Amino acid sequence: MSLAQEMFAIAPADGKANLSASQLKMLAGKARWIFRVCEAGFPTVPTIAITRAAWDELQAERARRDTRLRTHWVACLFKLVDKDGKPPLLVVRTSASSHNGGLMPARTGIAAPNAPEDAVDPARPLARAIKQAFESYGFSERGWNGKGQEGDRARQIVLVQAVAGGEIEHFLTRNATTGALGPAPLNGHPPPRLPKDVDALIGLLDAKAGRHMACLVSVDRGRIQFLSARPIQVSAGAELEAAVDRVERKVWTPHNAVSRIDATRLAQMLHPRLKSPDDVSPIAMGLGVSPGAASGIITFSAEDAARLRARGKHCILVVNETGPADIEGMKAATGILTARGGMSSHAGVIARITGKPCVAGVRSLSVDSVEMVCRIGDREFRQGDRLTIDGSDGAVYLGTLPLAQPQIGGAIGTLLDWSDASRTIAVRTNVETVESAQTALSFGAEGIGLARSEHMFFSPERMVALRRMILSEDEEARSRAIAGLVDYQTGDYSALFSAMNGMPVTVRLFDPPLHEFLPRTDEEIEETASSLGLAVRALRLRLDRIAEVNPMLGHRGVRLAITYPEILQMQMQAVMAGARAAGENQDKPVVVEVMVPFVSTATEIAWVRERAMTIFANSGFGRSDRIRFSFGAMMELPRACLRAGDIASMVDFISFGTNDLTQTTFGISRDDAPTFLAAYQRKGVYERDPFVTIDEKGVGEMIAMAIERGRAANPRLKVGICGEHAGDPASLHFFAGLGVDYVSCSPYRVPVARLTLAQASA
Amino acid sequence: MSLAQEMFAIAPADGKANLSASQLKMLAGKARWIFRVCEAGFPTVPTIAITRAAWDELQAERARRDTRLRTHWVACLFKLVDKDGKPPLLVVRTSASSHNGGLMPARTGIAAPNAPEDAVDPARPLARAIKQAFESYGFSERGWNGKGQEGDRARQIVLVQAVAGGEIEHFLTRNATTGALGPAPLNGHPPPRLPKDVDALIGLLDAKAGRHMACLVSVDRGRIQFLSARPIQVSAGAELEAAVDRVERKVWTPHNAVSRIDATRLAQMLHPRLKSPDDVSPIAMGLGVSPGAASGIITFSAEDAARLRARGKHCILVVNETGPADIEGMKAATGILTARGGMSSHAGVIARITGKPCVAGVRSLSVDSVEMVCRIGDREFRQGDRLTIDGSDGAVYLGTLPLAQPQIGGAIGTLLDWSDASRTIAVRTNVETVESAQTALSFGAEGIGLARSEHMFFSPERMVALRRMILSEDEEARSRAIAGLVDYQTGDYSALFSAMNGMPVTVRLFDPPLHEFLPRTDEEIEETASSLGLAVRALRLRLDRIAEVNPMLGHRGVRLAITYPEILQMQMQAVMAGARAAGENQDKPVVVEVMVPFVSTATEIAWVRERAMTIFANSGFGRSDRIRFSFGAMMELPRACLRAGDIASMVDFISFGTNDLTQTTFGISRDDAPTFLAAYQRKGVYERDPFVTIDEKGVGEMIAMAIERGRAANPRLKVGICGEHAGDPASLHFFAGLGVDYVSCSPYRVPVARLTLAQASA
Repeated sequence: MSLAQEMFAIAPADGKANLSASQLKMLAGKARWIFRVCEAGFPTVPTIAITRAAWDELQAERARRDTRLRTHWVACLFKLVDKDGKPPLLVVRTSASSHNGGLMPARTGIAAPNAPEDAVDPARPLARAIKQAFESYGFSERGWNGKGQEGDRARQIVLVQAVAGGEIEHFLTRNATTGALGPAPLNGHPPPRLPKDVDALIGLLDAKAGRHMACLVSVDRGRIQFLSARPIQVSAGAELEAAVDRVERKVWTPHNAVSRIDATRLAQMLHPRLKSPDDVSPIAMGLGVSPGAASGIITFSAEDAARLRARGKHCILVVNETGPADIEGMKAATGILTARGGMSSHAGVIARITGKPCVAGVRSLSVDSVEMVCRIGDREFRQGDRLTIDGSDGAVYLGTLPLAQPQIGGAIGTLLDWSDASRTIAVRTNVETVESAQTALSFGAEGIGLARSEHMFFSPERMVALRRMILSEDEEARSRAIAGLVDYQTGDYSALFSAMNGMPVTVRLFDPPLHEFLPRTDEEIEETASSLGLAVRALRLRLDRIAEVNPMLGHRGVRLAITYPEILQMQMQAVMAGARAAGENQDKPVVVEVMVPFVSTATEIAWVRERAMTIFANSGFGRSDRIRFSFGAMMELPRACLRAGDIASMVDFISFGTNDLTQTTFGISRDDAPTFLAAYQRKGVYERDPFVTIDEKGVGEMIAMAIERGRAANPRLKVGICGEHAGDPASLHFFAGLGVDYVSCSPYRVPVARLTLAQASA
Repeated sequence: MSLAQEMFAIAPADGKANLSASQLKMLAGKARWIFRVCEAGFPTVPTIAITRAAWDELQAERARRDTRLRTHWVACLFKLVDKDGKPPLLVVRTSASSHNGGLMPARTGIAAPNAPEDAVDPARPLARAIKQAFESYGFSERGWNGKGQEGDRARQIVLVQAVAGGEIEHFLTRNATTGALGPAPLNGHPPPRLPKDVDALIGLLDAKAGRHMACLVSVDRGRIQFLSARPIQVSAGAELEAAVDRVERKVWTPHNAVSRIDATRLAQMLHPRLKSPDDVSPIAMGLGVSPGAASGIITFSAEDAARLRARGKHCILVVNETGPADIEGMKAATGILTARGGMSSHAGVIARITGKPCVAGVRSLSVDSVEMVCRIGDREFRQGDRLTIDGSDGAVYLGTLPLAQPQIGGAIGTLLDWSDASRTIAVRTNVETVESAQTALSFGAEGIGLARSEHMFFSPERMVALRRMILSEDEEARSRAIAGLVDYQTGDYSALFSAMNGMPVTVRLFDPPLHEFLPRTDEEIEETASSLGLAVRALRLRLDRIAEVNPMLGHRGVRLAITYPEILQMQMQAVMAGARAAGENQDKPVVVEVMVPFVSTATEIAWVRERAMTIFANSGFGRSDRIRFSFGAMMELPRACLRAGDIASMVDFISFGTNDLTQTTFGISRDDAPTFLAAYQRKGVYERDPFVTIDEKGVGEMIAMAIERGRAANPRLKVGICGEHAGDPASLHFFAGLGVDYVSCSPYRVPVARLTLAQASA
């Protein structure tokens, strides 16, 4: 295409633009909307566009004292001239594909060139403004990360518009908070005063863009003229409301709405908040730069945050200000608190991207990260002290405050219902308690895909029973300790089955990460010794003997069931008794799926299956329709994936534990990874954190291979995913492609999974 | 076949036996040799055989008062009658396929039956002896392990022989110690007195059986008659000598000799071993983590071990677990015994490097090194008491037991030379020191396949430098610490390259299992702090921060090179300087292969390759023929195997680290496995210990897949195996089937690999 074609009217003063296909492709940013509004017949101020390549050539030609291209340019400028023939004053605007603070603001009231030479002479107002507009891209498009492509640069465009008469009005096409259609004030601008026919413009733009748009129009004696528009980012809530509204107005189909919502942003809406903010006084106020409330242990470094998270602890990262080195720590923290910075600070930007509550710019806060101490006013805090922050209003509170969990209503509910209609993969949840199960149900969970039975012991008195079992010296002592656990477990299972009322519940057999359950500090050891009636010295010896070099790869999972069959016996009996109790109070059958963790050979599965089936057969449920029982293997080791054919022939289902599978496939301990993951990210060694988004090329192939081999051996095999990746949109798209039957994620991620799987199955 | 055919003469009094194919198949145990000797025309005492099935039917027939089968049996017995027609006295012998103490001893001097009925009546001497002979199998053939097949049981046979006249002589066909051909005394029997024509019999049996045989003959007036023979187990040394002798006598080809030697028994010859393990019972069992037996005085500290060694005393270092501080003591000790730890524990690694027998992870052992006392079960031991350990099977014995020292005589050398002629896969060794390299060369190693560079720091003064590097807080401190290490390393590499004189040397980049190098006890920490000029408290903090939850999956291997590029820089420079120094003193080029450990992604390899190649290019060697440099990846993670195509396209070779690959594929920490591996073995969950013999179905498929993908991407790719499995005969057969280019094992395993790979390639 000749460069002459890269200078053209998008809204000529007279009639409509007749653009070639390649010109249409050049319409980035505002140019696109100006063209489309004009094309639709709405009064639009005359506008022309020129690419950087064309502009550069105009300048080169000028140096060669050539004028061929200039003739085209001048002809273009004449497209801005109305029928009355009087050259208007001009406006020069950038038209970047994405809005950025570094761009040149519109330069308005520029006199039309007097002579053709003036139209390209950078010493004259029009050409100077165009030159500066292009220069302002130079910074913004490449940005700080050094990325940017020269080809794209040549296609950048600048707009030249006629100045419109009358009042200029700024407004939004939809309310930034409620999403309601109709002119709404743009942040920092007065409420617009607009004639009625703006509604046609708004309807037009909303339908074409499918997003909230910031608009610029002129109003002259009740006559409205369109100047420009660009999409703006609003809260996820407003976007959802707008999406539902578009469906109701028949602008979109429900399918359009579902496919255009960003699942990652949906996740951010599902934040907790303070239960009763009115009852407590903040000890400090800063800026709420990323919404949601968070409570946790104070920590001062990214590494500590990662370590705490790996142990399942919530923490608040407290720093003077954050920088790129803190990103891993911010992701690991539950919330972020900074002494400096504001809404557009690094902390604010990253916190919103990652969906972490963040309070920034707390002036009374000072942090000494070397001494590991911080002060808020005259209070001193050390690592281990607790704070609560509210990223919605910037408040900082002492201690751990009760938080209220988000609820799904109105627009979200509608959208998720539409999602469910086109979704074929079931969404379950990973929970152990009735309370979490109810949260997950309110979010639309269709079953429990992972109930980690050992987590039922996270209370002081149960912990004593569990420790007694773990520390037993022989089978007899262990059997006695176990007897005390059956009752707890029976009650727990019964309540959980009842809460799920006929939906499937996958109980993973005991898989204690021993080191998490054992006493560590001197104080804990003394306490445990006395509660177990042991001498402290004897307990220490026993703890020493149990200690593992690599607990992640140690005596856990199915290995426990095989070495201590009495644990398996106890658990199966408790599950059966729980199912019987629940079945007595409901019409639907109890759907129990028992899953064996950390399997690496088919013989392990055969061993456990034989015993589990015997207990099931002896439970009296054998021929009853009060229970539907199935048996499965958790796939979290590479060898299990390789031998999936053998394993599948002995089970009803398999479910991938993607966290452990990622650990063993990569040979990375998630607990220890922070020491090198930051350097890996900085040096671009990993494309993505494999613990956040599934590693398709490695772990993903492992899963795909296992599903293929498993289904070949057992065509009726049910396949699930129950690792953390089951709540990550990118990973969910991958799993959907593998044809799994269900995924299971944490309760707050259930809506994300419902939406993403609907998008993936479309 | 009718049961009548299951009673037949194998050496008739008159002429030769004419057996059907199915009768030939029945010839188990002695029957086989009696038949073959008779068949060869050597005078043999008349002998008939009967199967248990036939005998049982004779009894059933008797109960039915039928006589059809009995007629056959009596006819059979008549085959024992000489031309003179006088029925001889009879002998009844068992003829089991393998000799066993529970079998009935030969019952001799039995009168021939007077009437047909007497031949089957268990109240009469002949039938009673036959009945008892069969009954003695009942115990022996099924044995304590409950295994045994009914089909085989029916085919068991009993022999009835005529009593021979003259003197009965017992002897061996070859000397039990030297392997020399000719009549040799059988253990517990007087030296045989035999006429010259026994040599024909011995030659005949030796050629037919290809094993040492225990023989029974009668000598009557200088006339020899063959009665029976069975193979006996002699020392591996005697077997090797006999094998070579058979080749020299042209009874065997060299190929026969190589293929008939049991490689596992060869391995046992290369370490000191218990002279008579069957005569003693262990007082405890642990893990045999470094092979060979050792006896000595119990000692609890490195200093005492050094003191005892200085006085020429053998001692066994007994500790809970070893750490860097114990290295000198381990070198001084004759053997090492620990309460904790497994195959990859510090004790195991150092013991194998230094060639010391070591038993680790003895759960019934507890050591109080302050009180200088240890307990094994309820026995108490003090310094000065004596123990014997066997690092091959993990046994611990009371007192000093007699040991047999290894001897590599002429026969081994000859056999291994023959092996090399038919072997196509190279055998290298895993060593870091010149001393070990020389041992390996004397065993026929063809290069070094794994030099673990971090092991070059196992001496007190180097350990200080290494700890300084590990504990550095920033890059500058680390660079300073590293500078001090370059000289050590350069000297080490130069010496190692020189020792190998042009053979390839694979240097694995630094892969420290950090926890093995760091101080642990209060005393060590104080010492380290002072040697580093740090406050003890600061050092403890740093140690806390470095501590890993799962060090096996932690900050190691290539992850260190990427996070601390200065370490990579130092190592590459030292390797290049070492190669230059070695190259100046030899004619052959120095063959250096740099290998990157613990790779999981191709980007890691690309990152290290770029830097390593730059250092190589800048070393001045670029176009010289003094060095042949190649670059490779160690494959020890499942993900590396899956992505072998990407990785192979960037390297000259890959080498499988089968230990770590087994750990990650199975999700088993070798150190922690003992707690459940015993139960797994007892319950038959694993067919074999996957750390001893490669798991073909899992880890093996991983390796096969990686080789296939790697060679598809890079047809010139060289493939090696450098894990412990490279010294295990069963695993070596598997690797040979995969078409690897070389294997690399510990020095003492080199002969085993040479022999096994020759057998595999035949």
